[in-house]
Amino acid sequence: MNLGLLFDEDFVADDRVVLRGRRRQHLETVLKVSEGDQVPVGKVNGLMGVGTVLRLDDRDAELSVRLDTQPPNPLPLTLVLAMPRPKMFRRVIQTCAALGVKDIWLINAYKVEKSFWQTPWLQDEQLRENLALGLEQACDTQMPDVHIRKLFKPFVEDELPGLIKGRRGLIAHPGTPDACPTHLSEPATLCIGPEGGFIPYEVDKIIAAGAEAVHLGSRILRVETAVPVLVSRLYDGCLY
Amino acid sequence: MNLGLLFDEDFVADDRVVLRGRRRQHLETVLKVSEGDQVPVGKVNGLMGVGTVLRLDDRDAELSVRLDTQPPNPLPLTLVLAMPRPKMFRRVIQTCAALGVKDIWLINAYKVEKSFWQTPWLQDEQLRENLALGLEQACDTQMPDVHIRKLFKPFVEDELPGLIKGRRGLIAHPGTPDACPTHLSEPATLCIGPEGGFIPYEVDKIIAAGAEAVHLGSRILRVETAVPVLVSRLYDGCLY
Repeated sequence: MNLGLLFDEDFVADDRVVLRGRRRQHLETVLKVSEGDQVPVGKVNGLMGVGTVLRLDDRDAELSVRLDTQPPNPLPLTLVLAMPRPKMFRRVIQTCAALGVKDIWLINAYKVEKSFWQTPWLQDEQLRENLALGLEQACDTQMPDVHIRKLFKPFVEDELPGLIKGRRGLIAHPGTPDACPTHLSEPATLCIGPEGGFIPYEVDKIIAAGAEAVHLGSRILRVETAVPVLVSRLYDGCLY
Repeated sequence: MNLGLLFDEDFVADDRVVLRGRRRQHLETVLKVSEGDQVPVGKVNGLMGVGTVLRLDDRDAELSVRLDTQPPNPLPLTLVLAMPRPKMFRRVIQTCAALGVKDIWLINAYKVEKSFWQTPWLQDEQLRENLALGLEQACDTQMPDVHIRKLFKPFVEDELPGLIKGRRGLIAHPGTPDACPTHLSEPATLCIGPEGGFIPYEVDKIIAAGAEAVHLGSRILRVETAVPVLVSRLYDGCLY
């Protein structure tokens, strides 16, 4: 937690918050703050700034906050991701949030096992918590949107063309002749398949929706590694 | 396991191997192979090719192998990494191996907790297993070298200058004015600090050894995310 993310419900006054649970505990046991200490904070979807510890007890951490700094720029990237295996899901979501991806579509694909959709990590509360962890790691406040689409065909036919229109549409597909572009200055929509890849039917449908197939070299990377590699390649290592 | 990595001790003849344990089980339960099926294999530090299943029983998988393909190019990068927290260590090592990093130096730093060095994952056998998992993921055969240096000062004074000489030396250091370069065509040596970063004394020592300090933007990334982001930024998404 390099930044304490503050939600509406944390505010007890315009410039004062009370934190409980994980964030209070982090202040006590990891940052080891005392009254008067300052820590970086930010309001979800708002400004960042400094929190000054007013009170820290077994239940509450009360801070006065001064918020005056813009969060980092969002990445102009829409990420369409075949639903990852639960074991990887949390890390992928946290990584996306940390990298500045603000628009995430979790979609079905032939090689997405039905059980993947049962993970409790997809529940609103859990999803928000893991996105918050990524934002807190990276010092960002802008909460990503996550869209869940459990049917491939209606998504790819009815929604994907609209997500690609006016942007660079890409599908990461090993073995394709064109290399993934670098240094994009325009917004992009990037589709990443499941372990084992999209099947040819799915690749064709995504291309028909307006995406171009690109490869990332001969190495096959896990989705949790492919996401930072691709984001960094497309947008210069997040130095936007 | 996108490639079955074969070690000298697996070979029962020049063109025949017997696999037990994890790799045998993977062939049976994940790849669900039968006699006559072909799977991608590669000999550690050697060629890649195809293995044909001759026999699969409860104990052994016997394959005939034909090895005729060069593994992907190594990354011309020496990675100097403050010893990560054990929880992250395995993933970082696997990721380095998958990305094609062949020279890894695990070093001490002020913010590396002493307990990190106690992890069983540092033992030769465990280290080799996790490097193998990364190579098998990425379809590579060239085993990285891992060097363990538990004392910062002798490493940075006596060894680091030699690791940087004739190469581009870099230390990833948030808040520094220069951005991390892109599109390197030369070999580089990159130093990445622990959670919380190198302390100023350590930064100064690494700079004195020949490295230039560079930043990666305002986002603070976990080492497991920073490594693929940096590698991709330096060497164009591993498309070498």
